[in-house]
Amino acid sequence: MGPDFSRQNGLIPVIVQSFTTGKVLMLAYMNEAAWDRTLETGKAHYWSRSRGKLWMKGEQSGNVQLVREISIDCDSDAILLKVDQLGGAACHTGFESCFHRWFKEGRFEVRGVPVFDPLEVYKK
Amino acid sequence: MGPDFSRQNGLIPVIVQSFTTGKVLMLAYMNEAAWDRTLETGKAHYWSRSRGKLWMKGEQSGNVQLVREISIDCDSDAILLKVDQLGGAACHTGFESCFHRWFKEGRFEVRGVPVFDPLEVYKK
Repeated sequence: MGPDFSRQNGLIPVIVQSFTTGKVLMLAYMNEAAWDRTLETGKAHYWSRSRGKLWMKGEQSGNVQLVREISIDCDSDAILLKVDQLGGAACHTGFESCFHRWFKEGRFEVRGVPVFDPLEVYKK
Repeated sequence: MGPDFSRQNGLIPVIVQSFTTGKVLMLAYMNEAAWDRTLETGKAHYWSRSRGKLWMKGEQSGNVQLVREISIDCDSDAILLKVDQLGGAACHTGFESCFHRWFKEGRFEVRGVPVFDPLEVYKK
């Protein structure tokens, strides 16, 4: 009855939506371990494809996602999380949403302004 | 500046959200041809992984998605569409949303009722 991790190299796309505003914040991926950790802790965990590791969203920035609701789609191969986004921003660029570029007249334009300065938050 | 189709076998996940209600309706995939057709026509086109073909959402059911807004995420590897969903339902099972099963106390329960009867709409 749960997500089907047997396909797509064991990775399932996860849509992350603000519980309060309905805004789509980001898209990430879970493997089965990330799914299990999310259920256990109530905090969103994902599989980072670029870093090849399990991570808790906000483990570095503090912008943790508290999971309020979880849905899986009709094919059990996509997940929807409704979350309370701590810190007010999901995107590593400092914007509230990773979806801050919108198509207009043949090009993409940025809407909104960053909530935080990534250079301060991610001291690398 | 557009979506990056050079990775993930040329397929990018697409979050489809109702323009009017903000409800997440489905997750699908676009290849570059589907992206181009969507921009040309204003109607959502996807790549069907199961059927291995380009398709226009609603080509059989009539439940076409009229695209109102398009966003790409910070990494250019996910797309968000806000659409007007004709027919009131996006899911092939007849539900408004493919995300109609919600996790509660260790299992998934269905919320809502189907808008149409798939046996009537998809006469196969």
